[in-house]
Amino acid sequence: MNRQELFEQIRAKRSFLCVGLDTDYTKIPDCIRSRFPGSKAINAFNRRIIDATAPYVVAYKPNLAFYEAFGGGGVAALLATCQYIRSNYPEIFIIADAKRGDIGNTSALYAEAFLREDSVFDAVTLAPYMGRDTVDPFLKYEDKWAVILALTSNPSADDFETLKLANGDPLWKEVLRKAKTWGCGPHGQIKNSTNEDRVMFVVGATRAETLKEVREIVPDHFLLVPGVGAQGGSLEEVARHGMNDRCGLLVNSSRGIIYADPTERFATAAAEEARKMATEMSSLLDRYL
Amino acid sequence: MNRQELFEQIRAKRSFLCVGLDTDYTKIPDCIRSRFPGSKAINAFNRRIIDATAPYVVAYKPNLAFYEAFGGGGVAALLATCQYIRSNYPEIFIIADAKRGDIGNTSALYAEAFLREDSVFDAVTLAPYMGRDTVDPFLKYEDKWAVILALTSNPSADDFETLKLANGDPLWKEVLRKAKTWGCGPHGQIKNSTNEDRVMFVVGATRAETLKEVREIVPDHFLLVPGVGAQGGSLEEVARHGMNDRCGLLVNSSRGIIYADPTERFATAAAEEARKMATEMSSLLDRYL
Repeated sequence: MNRQELFEQIRAKRSFLCVGLDTDYTKIPDCIRSRFPGSKAINAFNRRIIDATAPYVVAYKPNLAFYEAFGGGGVAALLATCQYIRSNYPEIFIIADAKRGDIGNTSALYAEAFLREDSVFDAVTLAPYMGRDTVDPFLKYEDKWAVILALTSNPSADDFETLKLANGDPLWKEVLRKAKTWGCGPHGQIKNSTNEDRVMFVVGATRAETLKEVREIVPDHFLLVPGVGAQGGSLEEVARHGMNDRCGLLVNSSRGIIYADPTERFATAAAEEARKMATEMSSLLDRYL
Repeated sequence: MNRQELFEQIRAKRSFLCVGLDTDYTKIPDCIRSRFPGSKAINAFNRRIIDATAPYVVAYKPNLAFYEAFGGGGVAALLATCQYIRSNYPEIFIIADAKRGDIGNTSALYAEAFLREDSVFDAVTLAPYMGRDTVDPFLKYEDKWAVILALTSNPSADDFETLKLANGDPLWKEVLRKAKTWGCGPHGQIKNSTNEDRVMFVVGATRAETLKEVREIVPDHFLLVPGVGAQGGSLEEVARHGMNDRCGLLVNSSRGIIYADPTERFATAAAEEARKMATEMSSLLDRYL
């Protein structure tokens, strides 16, 4: 999916909500687990969540660890879930939250696995520690995206991400500055397009005030923003400091939506939580877009 | 496997060689591919390589991307390969080169998948960008290891790893300084043991002279050293600057050994290359241990 199509979906749905499908088998309600054996329960749960929330959602983001932890059946459930989204809600963007980061031929293998044309994913998350070599192979796929960790919402983000460099800036700013040039130039992987059409950055909502500084460096990129809700970030602040003229935001919520209710009402409760967020997002789009 | 057992294996075999099982289906010799269909060829190739090289090897390191790229059959081949090592060469250390790096409950899932007691892996590689949260869940498993990327051997390691911080040091030194304290203290994950018994660091051989600086910060840790051979690092320099009183080195070679010959002689050629490295390692152990 390209940037314009993503923006048009946001305008049409009046939402920039991404739902994290971090489906933990032990948290799936009994009413599902008793009817569907083993890993089939994961897919059954996801389908109910998707059908309930799709009207309010522009992106789904399964974290691969939850599926890989369940072995072969888990990975099959992940693919079945994504194919279900593709078939029934083809307008919705799908992010593989894999946080991969390898180099050379290994990175090229991951890139092909996640972003080849017939893959169910639109995007994959990547860790930048080893530099450009980890990201480059992901940038050659038209209408597919590399989502690079910049400033995350976890407590120990301060261990390295916010460390001050000799030039006075924190490390995460250097990540933005360098990564926004990757793939460009005559020998770059990006042909007939721009870095803004292939790269997004992860910036946590728990540091909403820093979104102003993020926008000074990457005014036009899409940002994937975790940490609203459970982790304490404010949606209003994220929109105020982070929104650009094509919205430029995908705000993620996982547990607050998919585990909103532990009973057979889980899908209704998930829809209700997603609707609440989308309603607030709609008025924020009115105010800041 | 604990640190003492690893050291005793090194002394017994007179080698600190790690072989990277980065098995690319397209590079498996025809004599194997014609006899074993699909992903079964991966396991068949690996077994031949393992039987040929095991006398010279103290660790195997499969990079998971090569297996995941092959789908469910590839992952099954990876597990079958590791079980083969466990059954036939139980003294050999096995590193899952996964370069994972996630946080919170996701990280805990990965840790359990890779390092639980009945797992075939002794160790897993991790990316440190998001800080302590990514590594902590991996430190609670007795006789299992987190192998943290510090200074890698790829060209773009200079993008971030060697950036100078405000304190004058490069980022990789801060990674070593912080990570060597993780898991320690009364509330840490490491009980009745030390950080040196659970943590290794990746330091590329292409920067052998910096191993001296590495040893000033982490004198007692094991280092996993890629980049000897194909990438140009010198084994002698690695040993001279990096060896400590329990060796403290696992030097990795992948393509130079497993693809030493493209014909039916591949296993003999792999054994020959591994033997050459082990012979040099033996005299380096005499000289520097």
